[in-house]
This record gives sequence, structure tokens and C-alpha cells, in this order.
Amino acid sequence: METSFCKQYKKKILEANLALPKAGLVKLTWGNVSMIDRDEGIIVIKPSGVSYSTMSFDQMVVTDLDGRVLEGNLSPSSDLPTHLVLYKAFPEIGAVVHTHSKYAVEWAQSGRDIPPYGTTHADAFYGNIPCTRELTEEEVLKDYEVETGRVIVETFTSRGISPIAVPGAIVNGHGPFTWGKDVDAAVMNSIILEEVAEMALFSELLMKERKPIPNYLLDKHYYRKHGPNAYYGQRV
Amino acid sequence: METSFCKQYKKKILEANLALPKAGLVKLTWGNVSMIDRDEGIIVIKPSGVSYSTMSFDQMVVTDLDGRVLEGNLSPSSDLPTHLVLYKAFPEIGAVVHTHSKYAVEWAQSGRDIPPYGTTHADAFYGNIPCTRELTEEEVLKDYEVETGRVIVETFTSRGISPIAVPGAIVNGHGPFTWGKDVDAAVMNSIILEEVAEMALFSELLMKERKPIPNYLLDKHYYRKHGPNAYYGQRV
Amino acid sequence: METSFCKQYKKKILEANLALPKAGLVKLTWGNVSMIDRDEGIIVIKPSGVSYSTMSFDQMVVTDLDGRVLEGNLSPSSDLPTHLVLYKAFPEIGAVVHTHSKYAVEWAQSGRDIPPYGTTHADAFYGNIPCTRELTEEEVLKDYEVETGRVIVETFTSRGISPIAVPGAIVNGHGPFTWGKDVDAAVMNSIILEEVAEMALFSELLMKERKPIPNYLLDKHYYRKHGPNAYYGQRV
Amino acid sequence: METSFCKQYKKKILEANLALPKAGLVKLTWGNVSMIDRDEGIIVIKPSGVSYSTMSFDQMVVTDLDGRVLEGNLSPSSDLPTHLVLYKAFPEIGAVVHTHSKYAVEWAQSGRDIPPYGTTHADAFYGNIPCTRELTEEEVLKDYEVETGRVIVETFTSRGISPIAVPGAIVNGHGPFTWGKDVDAAVMNSIILEEVAEMALFSELLMKERKPIPNYLLDKHYYRKHGPNAYYGQRV
Repeated sequence: METSFCKQYKKKILEANLALPKAGLVKLTWGNVSMIDRDEGIIVIKPSGVSYSTMSFDQMVVTDLDGRVLEGNLSPSSDLPTHLVLYKAFPEIGAVVHTHSKYAVEWAQSGRDIPPYGTTHADAFYGNIPCTRELTEEEVLKDYEVETGRVIVETFTSRGISPIAVPGAIVNGHGPFTWGKDVDAAVMNSIILEEVAEMALFSELLMKERKPIPNYLLDKHYYRKHGPNAYYGQRV
Repeated sequence: METSFCKQYKKKILEANLALPKAGLVKLTWGNVSMIDRDEGIIVIKPSGVSYSTMSFDQMVVTDLDGRVLEGNLSPSSDLPTHLVLYKAFPEIGAVVHTHSKYAVEWAQSGRDIPPYGTTHADAFYGNIPCTRELTEEEVLKDYEVETGRVIVETFTSRGISPIAVPGAIVNGHGPFTWGKDVDAAVMNSIILEEVAEMALFSELLMKERKPIPNYLLDKHYYRKHGPNAYYGQRV
Repeated sequence: METSFCKQYKKKILEANLALPKAGLVKLTWGNVSMIDRDEGIIVIKPSGVSYSTMSFDQMVVTDLDGRVLEGNLSPSSDLPTHLVLYKAFPEIGAVVHTHSKYAVEWAQSGRDIPPYGTTHADAFYGNIPCTRELTEEEVLKDYEVETGRVIVETFTSRGISPIAVPGAIVNGHGPFTWGKDVDAAVMNSIILEEVAEMALFSELLMKERKPIPNYLLDKHYYRKHGPNAYYGQRV
Repeated sequence: METSFCKQYKKKILEANLALPKAGLVKLTWGNVSMIDRDEGIIVIKPSGVSYSTMSFDQMVVTDLDGRVLEGNLSPSSDLPTHLVLYKAFPEIGAVVHTHSKYAVEWAQSGRDIPPYGTTHADAFYGNIPCTRELTEEEVLKDYEVETGRVIVETFTSRGISPIAVPGAIVNGHGPFTWGKDVDAAVMNSIILEEVAEMALFSELLMKERKPIPNYLLDKHYYRKHGPNAYYGQRV
């Protein structure tokens, strides 16, 4: 295995994992970030249950696409099987983030989608951020982390949602997973998901009636930042 | 173009933009501050989508009053057209701030004015902080950022609100815009708007009936800080 | 005037004022702390509208008990007349703090007392933290800051509340004032008032029925920390 | 008494107490952590009412299992008798933490158990975090801190809850106590209890109907981290 790019990947994954507590999205050892290099057939992910304060880049774990450890002395995050399912089902994504960020968890615990109540949401998520159905007892007992990935994929497939247009989901009773074309995008989406989860919760306390923004405003904001006609940010 | 004052303006605008994340009003690359020099006919504004952590004063963009770039290598904030409409309609203002600060956004998402429930509000905003009507599909499709400015102006004009007495508004489904005689005042008003938005939300949870403060108390507090008989602060 | 103790008082008052933004109780130039030396007949208070970031101890203002400035080049806090009324009516107190801390303001804006829902409240406030009645138009127009002090005193007198047992009040539509035997106690009470205001608000969201703690538990916690039989803390 | 391990214990207890304000769980002088060495028959606990900013390790108090001071010049935390009751009743625990962390207090003030609404809760607490009944007047008057411990023990005994599976409780009208096999575990449980208390409160605002997660998911998450088949974290 080429050490040079693996080392670079591990540093990137360390940095991304450290960004989560800094952004207030994780406490203790919760949360994990992974990335995939599809050409090399490798995943890089945080080790399981290691303290953020002492984590070093060479503790990051490299696995193949079936989760077999290729590099690293520590066990990978116990959520790795969920990440693997997402990488296989969503070929356009390059990174996955899982947190227990509190407002997203609150929507997960209520079993409800986060509706697009405003342009902050629409800028990053093109429609509802879906909440999965509950896993069945059989699914939980059989292969829990794999089924967690599957129920996310099922949600997108059965409801016809594009994982590119809606780069995240909340797992019923559990919490959020986000993704993106690369690590920076996936982390950014986890920050935005938490922010719009909070905004949506308190908006409902103020609303006379619960009503998402009109579709034409959702379109406008989403396509202002995404796709061929985007005009937000710098042309590169 | 006189470099000396432009450089000074750019530094002021950089500093003001950096004050927003420091005050907890913006995340990621959200938010923008601009100022106008009406004698010189120029606007200085933040570039679009640039990270706050690496932003430097010479990245600030100088435009004319129609938004044509006079100085700077980067695209100006995509919200510039909204700022331009406000500068043209409100001749007394010298700076504009836009954020997605969360409590203000929650009122925007609920489509409701923020009522003056207390003296903290009255000290800075003389009455309701108005929420605009929703933009129509036609307005969103035609010239979105211009129409965003227009609907703010329409709100103040049609409801007879003075943009000096109420230095800010919330755009329906979107978020707050504030302004002031200069950059410091506009930034301060964005901080106060967010604070009173939060206070008003939680006050409603406690209230037996929703009731703004009496007009005579609103008058007292507003005129304690504003106008010829103000006596708060130091005489200069 | 003895410079040596005045200098010491000014340093104490500066330090106490700086403690307020540090504790998250004030933003911008809001809030003020004063102290009284009853033997010398002097008050030391923050100047009006000065930024916390540049405030220095020699900007603190020394006045007599009628508010006439004895030392200092700046105007005293515009809330000084409220402090003076409290010092005259409550002879046991040595310091007064005023903030616009948000949860206390929310109770003020709802016009409701903060009930003692738990021992955190009982440890410092022996019963409801009272909310004053609204000031009348006449009171607001005549001598607003004096009347603000008077309505606090009226609240304690008419309801038979001891200002020692309940070292703070919230002014209807405005915000909290706290006090104590000295500056440290008054600042500590402002921190506790804000904390119990927050706890009480969210407790109400969870409660099946609104119910203060039993009187015997209120007694126990209050007298555990106060009076001749107190046994919390160190014997000095 | 062996100075070497006592010194080590005092340093550990100091560090744990300082972790509480850092984690946002305590203000002022609130909160206390203790540990037990059952072989030596000693308890180490924070002194009462000492400021966190000046606390030093040699101020920690060493007592025997009846609370008699063996080492230290300061009075032990006034909550020591509660800790002693817990150590006697729950032989598997090695440390106890008490805080007034706000969300846990809010559940305490509402007199309600915290239901397991999600996996964040299930990862650390195997079922409801129980709220005790109110203490009677007689109990409060007689031996308050002892009775506080007794009512916690009664809650676990009468409801058949294991203090290992549910390492914490909330005392009605008061606040949370947590424990663990050692100091780190007890502090971690106090952080998690506060986090899930907050998540549960806001989840209820979103929920159509209040419903804990299914038992099979509770089992899965609890036993993923605890017991012989745990697979979260590193094998040591």
C-alpha cells in the first residue's frame, strides 16, 4: 500500500474528526468520519471509542470495502458497517459523517423528517431531511450496523430521494448521518443539518401552522449553490 | 480611486464581517456586511463564499452603486443586489448586515413580526421588527436578490415604518437584514435583533397572553437612547 | 475624599462589571453594578454606555447618595437613580446589579414571578422571585428610573417580602435587579437568578402541573446556606 | 495513613471536580465528586463551598465510611452523607458525582423520570433514569442528606432497577446524582445524563406521541457497550 497518500488520508480524517467536537456536534468519544478512495478500494475511518483529546493520525484505521483492516492497530469505529453500506449504495459520495448532535437526535427521537422551513435548509438540502422507519427486532438482532445503513438506503430509494440533493438522513431513534463528495463537504453538511434541525424545532414553536417554504424558493436556493447554474461563491 | 480610504473601508468591512461569527451570528461562510460612501458613490462588501478563517482585507470587493466591481479579484457576495436596493431606498443608512442568525431565522420561518415584548427590544427597535410577505414565484424567478431588497422596502413603505426607527427586518422564510448609520451601528443592530428574537420566542412560552409593552414604555426606552433628548451613554 | 479606598472600590466595581459579560449575563454595553459605602456616604457605579472591552477602573463614577458626581469624568449609568432608591429602602444591602440576562428578561416580559421549583432556587431565594406590576404612563413619563426603583420597593413592601431573603426582583417588561451584602454576593445572585430563571422556564415545559417545592424543602435549603444554623461552606 | 495513594486520590478528585464546570455542568461552587477505596475504608471528597478557580488538591477531604474526617483542614461537601448512603447500598460503585446541571434539574423539578427516547440514552442508561418520590417533611427535617441518599436507594430497590445498569438518578425537586465503577465513569455518566436530559426535553416538543425506543433497540445499544459481548471501543 502506498504510504504517502494513506498518510495524507489519515491526517485528513483525523482533522475532520477533530472538527466535530470543535463545532459542538459530538461529546466524549461519540461520532465518526470516514472517507473512501474508490480507485484504491480503501476506506479510512476513526478508531472506536478513542478520546478526541489524545487521538493521533496514525491511529486512523484503513480497511478494504468489506471492512477488513489493512492498516492500523486499533479496531475501527463500530459504525463502519453502516458507512460501507452507504458507500456501496451511493457511488457519488466520498465521505460519511455520523454524530449524535443534539437537535438532529431530537428529530430522530421524534421519528419525524426535518421539513425545509427556510432558505438555510434549502441552500444545502433539497427537500425534507428524511427520518428512516424504525428497524425491526429482527434487523436489530441480526446485523445491526449493516441494517442501519440499509434502512437509510431504503428510505432514499423507496421515497425517490437523491442522496446528492439531500446529503444526509436521520436514523429513527438514533441520530444523523451525512455525506458528501469529499470529507469537507460531509463535515459541512453535518454542521448545516444540526443548524437547520435547531431552527426547525424552534420555528415550530412560533408557527401558526406548520408549512415548508414554497417549492420555487426551495429550487431557487438549492440551485443558487448547486449544479451548472450555481452563482454563490467563487468561480474556480 | 483613492487607495487610502478604500483600504480603510476594506479593513473596516473585514473587521465587521469577522465580528459576526465571533458574536455567534454566522456559521461557515454565511452572512455579509457592506458599507456605502455616498459621496464617492462606492460600496464595499464581503466576497461570496470565502471562509472567515482565511479572509483578508484585500479580498473585500469595491463596487459602484449598480454593483459593477471597481476593485477586487473575487465575486462580491451574492446578496449584493439586496444591499443595493436598501441603500437606494433608505438614504440615511451607511451599512447593511445580513446573517442567518438562528432565532431571527426562526421568526422568519414562522412568517411573523417580532413584537416588542420588553425594553431590550425598545432600546433599539421602535416597534415590531417586521417580517416581509412571501415573495411570489415570479419575483423569485426573475431577479431574486433584487426582489428581496424590494420586499423589505415595500414592507416599510406600505406599513409606514421608518427604517431609522426600526433598523432591521426579517425576510419571510429566509432571515434578518439590519442596517445603521455606519458599520458599527449595523452590526450592533444585528446582535440586538438576534437577542430580542430569542427573548421574544421564550417569552411567548411563559406568557399567559401575548402582549407587547405599552406604547409609553416603548417611547421612553427608544427616546432614552435615540434623538435629541437621549440621555443614555456619554455626551460627545 | 480618601483616594485609597475609592481606588479600591473602583477596581472592585470594574471587576464586577467585567464579570457580567464573562458569565454570559450582558452583551454590548448593557448591565451595571454599583456599591455603597454607607459610612462615607458614597456610591461607586459603572459609567453609562461604555464598552466593556476598553473599560478601565478610573472610569468608574463616584457619587453621593443623591447621585451627584463626586469623582469621574464620565456620566454614571443611566440606571443610577434606580440603584439609589434601592440603597435607601433596603439598608442592609451593599451592592446592586442590573442586567438584561435573557431568561430573567423572558420572565419579566411575561410579567410573571419565578416560582421556586427546586432547591437550586431555594438555596439563594427564599420563595418567588417577584415580578413588579407594570409602571403607569405617569410614572414612566415623570421620573422613570426613580419609579423603577420605587416599584421594586413597593413589591417587597406590599407583599411582605424580605429583600434579604429574596435578594432580587424582575421589573415588568424590563429585566432583573439583584443585590447583596457586598459586590460579590450581588453578582453571585445575578448569576443564580439567571440560572433558576432558565431552569424554571424549561421545567414548565416538562411539568404535568405547575407546583413549587414544598415549604419545608424551601426552608431546609435556604437555611442550610443562610442564617445562624447554616452548615454549607466553611466556618470562618 | 499512606500518603502516597491518598495524594493520588486527592489529585484525581480535584481533577474530576474541575471537569464539571469545564463540561458546563456546574456554576459557582455547586457540585461535588467523591471516590471510595473500599479496602482502605476511606472516602475522598471535595470540600464544601470552595471556589473552583482556587481549589487545590490538598484541600480535598479524606473521611472514613461514617464521614469522620481523617485528613484535611476544611469541612467536606455538605452532601457527603448522601454519598455515604450510596456507597453502602451499592457495593459495586467506586465514585459518586452530584451536580445541578440544568436539564437534569428540569426533569427533577418536574418530578418525572427521563425516558429512553433514543440510542444516546440507551448507550449508557438501560431504561428510564428514575426520579425519586418527594421527601416527606419528616425526612427533610430529620436528616436531610442521609434521607436524600435513602430515597435514591429506595427508588432502585422498590422498582427493581440495577444501579449498575442505570448509573444515576434524579432527586425530586433537586437534581442528579450519578455514579460508576470509578471516578472517570461517574463523571462521564453525569455528562451523558445531562445530554440525554436535554435531548429528551426537546424531543417531547417534537413528538406526536411520547414513546420510548423499543426494548430490543435499548438492549442492543446497552449491550453493545456493556457486558461480556460489548464490541464498542478497543479490546484491552
